[in-house]
Amino acid sequence: MEKLKKYVSVKDEDQFYHQGAVELLVFNFLLILTILTIWLFKNHRFRFLHETGGAMLYGLVMGLIIRYVTKASDVESGTVYECEKLKSGPSILLINITNQVYEYQYKREISHHNVNGHQGNAMLQKMTFDPSIFFNILLPPIIFHAGYSLKKRHFFRNLGSILTYAFLGTAISCVVIGLIMYGFVKAMVHTGQLKQWEFHFTDCLFFGSLMSATDPVTVLAIFHELHVDTDLYTLLFGESVLNDAVAIVLTYSISIYSPKENPNAFDAAAFFQSVGNFLGIFAGSFAMGSSYAVVTALISFMHLTKFTKLCEFPMLETGLFFLLSWSAFLSAEAAGLTGIVAVLFCGVTQAHYTYNNLSPDSKMRTKQLFEFMNFLAENVIFCYMGLALFTFQNHIFNPLFICGAFVAVFVARACNIYPLSFLLNLGRKQKIPRNFQHMMMFSGLRGAIAFALAIRDTDSQPKQMMFTTALLIVFFTVWVFGGGTTPMLTWLQIRVGVDPDEDLKAEAASQSASNLDKNTTKAESAWLFRIWYGFDHKYLKPILTHTGPPLTTTLPEWCNPIARLLTSPTAYGDQLKDGDTDYIINNDELTENYESSAHTPVPAQGRTGSTQATSKEDIQEGDLGLGGYKLQLQPQMNSSA
Amino acid sequence: MEKLKKYVSVKDEDQFYHQGAVELLVFNFLLILTILTIWLFKNHRFRFLHETGGAMLYGLVMGLIIRYVTKASDVESGTVYECEKLKSGPSILLINITNQVYEYQYKREISHHNVNGHQGNAMLQKMTFDPSIFFNILLPPIIFHAGYSLKKRHFFRNLGSILTYAFLGTAISCVVIGLIMYGFVKAMVHTGQLKQWEFHFTDCLFFGSLMSATDPVTVLAIFHELHVDTDLYTLLFGESVLNDAVAIVLTYSISIYSPKENPNAFDAAAFFQSVGNFLGIFAGSFAMGSSYAVVTALISFMHLTKFTKLCEFPMLETGLFFLLSWSAFLSAEAAGLTGIVAVLFCGVTQAHYTYNNLSPDSKMRTKQLFEFMNFLAENVIFCYMGLALFTFQNHIFNPLFICGAFVAVFVARACNIYPLSFLLNLGRKQKIPRNFQHMMMFSGLRGAIAFALAIRDTDSQPKQMMFTTALLIVFFTVWVFGGGTTPMLTWLQIRVGVDPDEDLKAEAASQSASNLDKNTTKAESAWLFRIWYGFDHKYLKPILTHTGPPLTTTLPEWCNPIARLLTSPTAYGDQLKDGDTDYIINNDELTENYESSAHTPVPAQGRTGSTQATSKEDIQEGDLGLGGYKLQLQPQMNSSA
Repeated sequence: MEKLKKYVSVKDEDQFYHQGAVELLVFNFLLILTILTIWLFKNHRFRFLHETGGAMLYGLVMGLIIRYVTKASDVESGTVYECEKLKSGPSILLINITNQVYEYQYKREISHHNVNGHQGNAMLQKMTFDPSIFFNILLPPIIFHAGYSLKKRHFFRNLGSILTYAFLGTAISCVVIGLIMYGFVKAMVHTGQLKQWEFHFTDCLFFGSLMSATDPVTVLAIFHELHVDTDLYTLLFGESVLNDAVAIVLTYSISIYSPKENPNAFDAAAFFQSVGNFLGIFAGSFAMGSSYAVVTALISFMHLTKFTKLCEFPMLETGLFFLLSWSAFLSAEAAGLTGIVAVLFCGVTQAHYTYNNLSPDSKMRTKQLFEFMNFLAENVIFCYMGLALFTFQNHIFNPLFICGAFVAVFVARACNIYPLSFLLNLGRKQKIPRNFQHMMMFSGLRGAIAFALAIRDTDSQPKQMMFTTALLIVFFTVWVFGGGTTPMLTWLQIRVGVDPDEDLKAEAASQSASNLDKNTTKAESAWLFRIWYGFDHKYLKPILTHTGPPLTTTLPEWCNPIARLLTSPTAYGDQLKDGDTDYIINNDELTENYESSAHTPVPAQGRTGSTQATSKEDIQEGDLGLGGYKLQLQPQMNSSA
Repeated sequence: MEKLKKYVSVKDEDQFYHQGAVELLVFNFLLILTILTIWLFKNHRFRFLHETGGAMLYGLVMGLIIRYVTKASDVESGTVYECEKLKSGPSILLINITNQVYEYQYKREISHHNVNGHQGNAMLQKMTFDPSIFFNILLPPIIFHAGYSLKKRHFFRNLGSILTYAFLGTAISCVVIGLIMYGFVKAMVHTGQLKQWEFHFTDCLFFGSLMSATDPVTVLAIFHELHVDTDLYTLLFGESVLNDAVAIVLTYSISIYSPKENPNAFDAAAFFQSVGNFLGIFAGSFAMGSSYAVVTALISFMHLTKFTKLCEFPMLETGLFFLLSWSAFLSAEAAGLTGIVAVLFCGVTQAHYTYNNLSPDSKMRTKQLFEFMNFLAENVIFCYMGLALFTFQNHIFNPLFICGAFVAVFVARACNIYPLSFLLNLGRKQKIPRNFQHMMMFSGLRGAIAFALAIRDTDSQPKQMMFTTALLIVFFTVWVFGGGTTPMLTWLQIRVGVDPDEDLKAEAASQSASNLDKNTTKAESAWLFRIWYGFDHKYLKPILTHTGPPLTTTLPEWCNPIARLLTSPTAYGDQLKDGDTDYIINNDELTENYESSAHTPVPAQGRTGSTQATSKEDIQEGDLGLGGYKLQLQPQMNSSA
């Protein structure tokens, strides 16, 4: 008898394994469908439904099927049991049931009104997977890829504007959404739909911060395909990538804002603590991410120079690169910082330094690997969003709240883009034309980050209401705005089919002509970046990569012994090769475009005093901050600016 | 107050996320260390410790640190609670503790004597991750890669021997280990170390089957690096890959063998049911794996021909390839078959058909992707094995059992290799020389599969004893035998530095001379395979790939309309291109070696009647089964054969 029972339990366990397989199979099936659809769409040049929209649609249908076709199997799962002896919730719970001990793992705390939601269907429960999977597994490759594929030159040229949109814009968006939602919540309390104590102003701000994260995926994929104007692309890309980082840290800072007494009153101390938290976490994550990248650069550099044969093992190189980048994420998380921010800046730094040290084979491998991971993770997330609408068990659909959120999101986007563009245009030499502003307004899609932030905490009723609303806004913006991108581009007469390389070359030519002019106009804002660029070019790049001038020429003479130690023997030979890796990551390209002729060698004596205008690179990249480069003449731009 | 409590719970949750990050970080750190060590070793051509051995060593040290440096944190976790109201263990348990509901997820059943092992240390508990991760995430890429990188030509030439070693050999090994262990168990019962009812003969057989899975990783990596004789390599590779599949199905069949009455007595019905299970599961998994590969081939073929522009999207191709291959695994698991076997044959079939349809870019991407995943998964498993020795909490070290197991494993390997080699040499034209036999005996390492099978079930005391013993055998064989491979090769005078391509060409030349001779000798054993090969070449390859002769020429005339429908327009043009993908996966090579000149076009009328000798491919690959090809003259082979 005991024997029999044992075998039954073995079979149960096997069934358990197979259950896991079924869940994964559902996702695989959805992804395969999505890929086949994308393939079909690309073949027919059909752009009204992007792959992300398609993935969501398939997820939705699958969710519907799982919800209404599969049956409730586990009758007991809605019941709450009492255990008088337990004083707190241990992470592993051992329970004696009819003389057999079972091990249970702690999952989460549930508020009382949610208990009824936990009814029956084991399949539904399995499909709603742990939100930590989003943060630890799915998001890092997407964000890293964004950082790694950043078009650096264009990015840095628009850095001032991008930072303004990302930091100031996100803050504006967060506060505006928070205020509007607070108004709606007040109205809901007035009509009796909500109890006063359930929804504080901080909750509204929390919602505002998570809804401020715009999604870089859908619109930018279309932009990339159509080769939309590079500046518009860079502005939107930079904004949405950095803005994700800002929104994540902001959400975290707001969630730990805990005023001592009345949660509705303003507590200055707690507020400033939150601001301090925000700055600390952001700076800490930035430092963590970049330092991992610097370590990777150093290791790959050491191996490249000291053991020259080691670039024979591109897989080891790729493995190391991958693991160290992921470690940046995990270390930041483990240290209580924000891994997403760390991995973003890790990606940027890796592209800037480490990429130059890799063997050609590893360059391609890392590029393809991250591209592939990004592709899979993105589609899994969008499929899952579709699924979640029907499989998540604690939705709260509140029409007033949802309407309010839609209004708030659009008003906040307008308050972000138009006033900031106006301010930026005061300082920018090349104005941001009005049609660009409209396009940026239109491109404020919400996607993976907003969803991930919302699903992270769904314990209380307000949080569930927020989650449901966020999901609906994601659906709406991805389908309607994502699908409308191509018509909108035509309507706004934004130029497409631009070759960024040619664009840049033409600009560089006109730029060097007006070199003197620029140096006098916006020197104060570009000043800091120029110093950093000089430093980077003269010291960091030679130490971390085998590009740039050898250290022996840039360091003062008394440092010569150290310089010689740090300089790789190849650096002298490679002096001609400019290591700047713009455009290294293009979805289509496989060959690397080095601008190998761009860097003219300068004799050592010519490099001592001045930081400016020593090479073409310095000329081009030294010019940063709030604008100040020559406008490419385009009829529609001029007419609207 | 309630507010405060809520914030505390949010912080707890965040800590929970960070915990997950710490675990992953530990693994990342171990992997980075391993990669750096491999890098160093490869540079110094140091072969006494292979990367797998290194990974295990680092894991061991880390396990030691975690075990003895971190403190017990969770005091309550060793306690068992009573819940009278619960009648069975639900998958999700909701528990009310001091007015707060907590959600717990079912993990496993624990036998009573194990409860004491569950003390304290949360870090230790976290590090021992779910065995389903091995089976669903880590093993599939390794096994798929093995199938995908199979050197088909050499493999099929030795197919008879490989199948004999894999099926008959594994069965012999399983029974021998089972019998010897049963003797030791009897002795242990006699000395009072064990109670009679705890350990049945089926348990011994179970142990025998799981210890029969030899590991392809360590030895073959060294073989590959040294370019050891291709036939020895193929024999060992084929044996260990297929033998894993056999051992997994065997273990499963034994675990569900349940005699009705006395578990020690022989029950013929149950026995034959187990044999039937074995055959059914094996055949079913084989069919599942191959059919997914055929679907992939069809899809990629359709896209290639119907929508010619679609090979422009190598990422979609790669994604589809990856997802369909993984789906083969998951479908088999979901259907109650063995995913590992399915994914193995899926890999073989993908390499045979789909690979030919991929764009050159996708060929490289899939190759590199699976290589990379294989590399990571392998090292994670070996690190984890090292960790498990100290972090797994239910070890039972029984010296007598361990000694018995060591004796049994070596005796069983000897009973497998020497008698079977003797029998095979009776039939083989090219004998397996004695030094090859010694090397095969010596290369019987146990690795990932044995470990994964052992960790899958550690609920009862006998199973824990088996797990501990299996772990120790893995350590011993990987370190001692893995490290001793290079000296052993020298000592046994086995030739190294062989170029498989040249080997094959020389053989092909000598083979075509002795063509007539072979066709008469072992025709009966090669007969079945020759029919299959003719069928494959004339019908399957033209349908599934764009290689081989067009269907219009191979099908009878009345099938012409169908043939024309199924034949791709490119097949006529590509007729010259032989699609056979031998040697496609080499760890080092990046370029594909097509034998584009090997396939001489044959006019349609010459192809109607005979299945033999229509092309060089048929000559080479048609000759399968138990040997029968010309021996390459090598002094040491002749002296020992």
